Amino acid sequence: MSATAELRRTVAELHRELTRYELVSWTAGNVSARVPDHELMVIKPSGVSYDELGPHAMVVTDLHGTLVEGELAPSSDTAAHAYVYRHMPHVGGVVHTHSPYATAWAARGEPIPCVLTMIADEFGGEIPVGPFALIGDDSIGRGIVETLSASRSPAVLMRNHGPFTVGATARAAVKAAVLLEDVARTVHFARQLGQPDVIEQQHVDRLYERYQNVYGQ
Amino acid sequence: MSATAELRRTVAELHRELTRYELVSWTAGNVSARVPDHELMVIKPSGVSYDELGPHAMVVTDLHGTLVEGELAPSSDTAAHAYVYRHMPHVGGVVHTHSPYATAWAARGEPIPCVLTMIADEFGGEIPVGPFALIGDDSIGRGIVETLSASRSPAVLMRNHGPFTVGATARAAVKAAVLLEDVARTVHFARQLGQPDVIEQQHVDRLYERYQNVYGQ
Amino acid sequence: MSATAELRRTVAELHRELTRYELVSWTAGNVSARVPDHELMVIKPSGVSYDELGPHAMVVTDLHGTLVEGELAPSSDTAAHAYVYRHMPHVGGVVHTHSPYATAWAARGEPIPCVLTMIADEFGGEIPVGPFALIGDDSIGRGIVETLSASRSPAVLMRNHGPFTVGATARAAVKAAVLLEDVARTVHFARQLGQPDVIEQQHVDRLYERYQNVYGQ
Amino acid sequence: MSATAELRRTVAELHRELTRYELVSWTAGNVSARVPDHELMVIKPSGVSYDELGPHAMVVTDLHGTLVEGELAPSSDTAAHAYVYRHMPHVGGVVHTHSPYATAWAARGEPIPCVLTMIADEFGGEIPVGPFALIGDDSIGRGIVETLSASRSPAVLMRNHGPFTVGATARAAVKAAVLLEDVARTVHFARQLGQPDVIEQQHVDRLYERYQNVYGQ
Repeated sequence: MSATAELRRTVAELHRELTRYELVSWTAGNVSARVPDHELMVIKPSGVSYDELGPHAMVVTDLHGTLVEGELAPSSDTAAHAYVYRHMPHVGGVVHTHSPYATAWAARGEPIPCVLTMIADEFGGEIPVGPFALIGDDSIGRGIVETLSASRSPAVLMRNHGPFTVGATARAAVKAAVLLEDVARTVHFARQLGQPDVIEQQHVDRLYERYQNVYGQ
Repeated sequence: MSATAELRRTVAELHRELTRYELVSWTAGNVSARVPDHELMVIKPSGVSYDELGPHAMVVTDLHGTLVEGELAPSSDTAAHAYVYRHMPHVGGVVHTHSPYATAWAARGEPIPCVLTMIADEFGGEIPVGPFALIGDDSIGRGIVETLSASRSPAVLMRNHGPFTVGATARAAVKAAVLLEDVARTVHFARQLGQPDVIEQQHVDRLYERYQNVYGQ
Repeated sequence: MSATAELRRTVAELHRELTRYELVSWTAGNVSARVPDHELMVIKPSGVSYDELGPHAMVVTDLHGTLVEGELAPSSDTAAHAYVYRHMPHVGGVVHTHSPYATAWAARGEPIPCVLTMIADEFGGEIPVGPFALIGDDSIGRGIVETLSASRSPAVLMRNHGPFTVGATARAAVKAAVLLEDVARTVHFARQLGQPDVIEQQHVDRLYERYQNVYGQ
Repeated sequence: MSATAELRRTVAELHRELTRYELVSWTAGNVSARVPDHELMVIKPSGVSYDELGPHAMVVTDLHGTLVEGELAPSSDTAAHAYVYRHMPHVGGVVHTHSPYATAWAARGEPIPCVLTMIADEFGGEIPVGPFALIGDDSIGRGIVETLSASRSPAVLMRNHGPFTVGATARAAVKAAVLLEDVARTVHFARQLGQPDVIEQQHVDRLYERYQNVYGQ
């Protein structure tokens, strides 16, 4: 199944961005990628150190989380990733972390207001909060999908838990996770000493439009 | 005494996690491990730079802190570690740091409330505060043991001092120290701008049960 | 066009200071340098990873942002940099980041008061706020130039956006960006627990005078 | 003058601790060491990047700051270091930084209360504030010496400026600078969410006594 060989490498490498930006501690956090044209995904194994996350440690499951390829048990968040892939066909990558500033907003159940041009650019408006949900069934996946479906944001703050982000590719989902923590932190700082102004909706729309279409190569 | 050779290496390597996660400054902080089937422990020497903490720098003491093997004086916290091993037979590793967020809760004498799924998973409820105790006799060890015995938490916040964590192995105790600082920080951030909701006890119980039995390989 | 070869290398290397001091996330942020004696500038390409920013990735544009040399599209902030070079002939380098503490002051639209000798030394007084401006025309460049022209500060906090800094060279502009985040952070901390005293104007003037003329080699 | 060769190397290496613990930005901050049995000191040159601070970059001055050895201009803080060596004969090393948490207390002119055992151990009580003083004459040196002479603390928080620390050796002064920032940060965090209890004087005395005489090898 050589379609997954390249993707294992990509997903393994993307996990390094989680440690580089200090979005994760110990073995928490995970990245997955949909295998194009297959009902499969590549995901991190459960409870394995980031130092040992080479391509061979990655596992492949079907879109109900059943192990298809690999020797390790998949991430305990596999069911949530799988639910997202089943219900959001345009999503090619999913990331979950407990990055500290984003998780602090999640713990308070407070959306991050759109007070920075970077939030308008990447998230298209305020970053929404998803419900409290226990692990073990489809509750987390359903909470993610319902919240993201009502928003332009690729990130959702799951209450008392932490953020999930999505993207057209695993790399785009990791980018969203990195920028989420960045803006969660900056708005936290801003709010500690005052109340920043929310950017007007028409300006948010123009910024979002431009960034989605013009930025990058 | 070859039973300790492997353990010296393990304990030496685990100290690198303390610097990697910035839980310690200068020479503060220490990891120890019980030597299985012996009344002995391996522990860091006192006041030695983290750059010089190879396996040979580690020292072996009995469970009253008397030096048995090694050329350096043991950590000044050896008595506290030894007390824990004498009174908690299931504990195989002990870690002490002054990690900044956990120590801030300790300075206020305030337990960390269970407002995150990660706290329910790893600590099984709120993270308790232990008494103020002076170094030099069994006061610190007794404070740790009494506080941990009344809780599911592997971590205790010693008042005006800093955290101690325990585990079945030294690695598990280090994991608890890393995740403690992570949640101490996130809840600190959450509390700076509001009051996060405490997770219901029945949900805490289900999360704790699952994580202790299902997570990892 | 060998005048730009050396400058490409310098600008590429200066981008490493942005990551070293954690002033940028993912591909955000950019450094540019005026090409001496030419109506040209060297600038970072748009949306390229910091890991891939070698000298050959840099692009050269004229002072209206039109690509002259290089294979990649220039930074989406090129128009703002170009506006600064057209209107501030003594400026040889421009830097833009979303460094978190400086951006938090920008989000509140609050200047950083001159409460530290380092602020007097490097910025010559309080660090001013520029207007909210949308990307896409000269609004950002005009806001930067108007604000800096009314101040001794080489840094401006663009409202709801982030800082821009300038200098006689690109290196000086990077230094201003690094020290800006440093003082933005320290004054943030100071203000969280009280109200630091502003340094008297006569002392600010003496410190600024001395630092600009005596410091360094 | 081979007495200084070894000391240049030591002082150069100690500067790496300032960057390792993020106590300094750009070229700010400096370490010096008294040359034993000579009226000389080794100090960092002014405005040189930390990447270029090898032994050969260090300069030697007399205890009035006049250059004796080396090709670069000495640190602009040389007069303050020299004043300390002239007036505190037991001091063998001096460190100056603008480390952010310590400088925040300095900006407010507020001493750091003794609410942690680590503060009692290393600083022997609250960490005092020194006067606001301009660079250019003996004002800073005099402020340091007068404040430290009235305290057991090896650290002083110079108002609106930043910390200076001293020690029997340059290494001890660097240790004090590292632990100062550590406790300045932890007490900052503790104070953000409440009011930690100050440790009783008799306990502070016992902790200080023990740490100064028993800790280390």
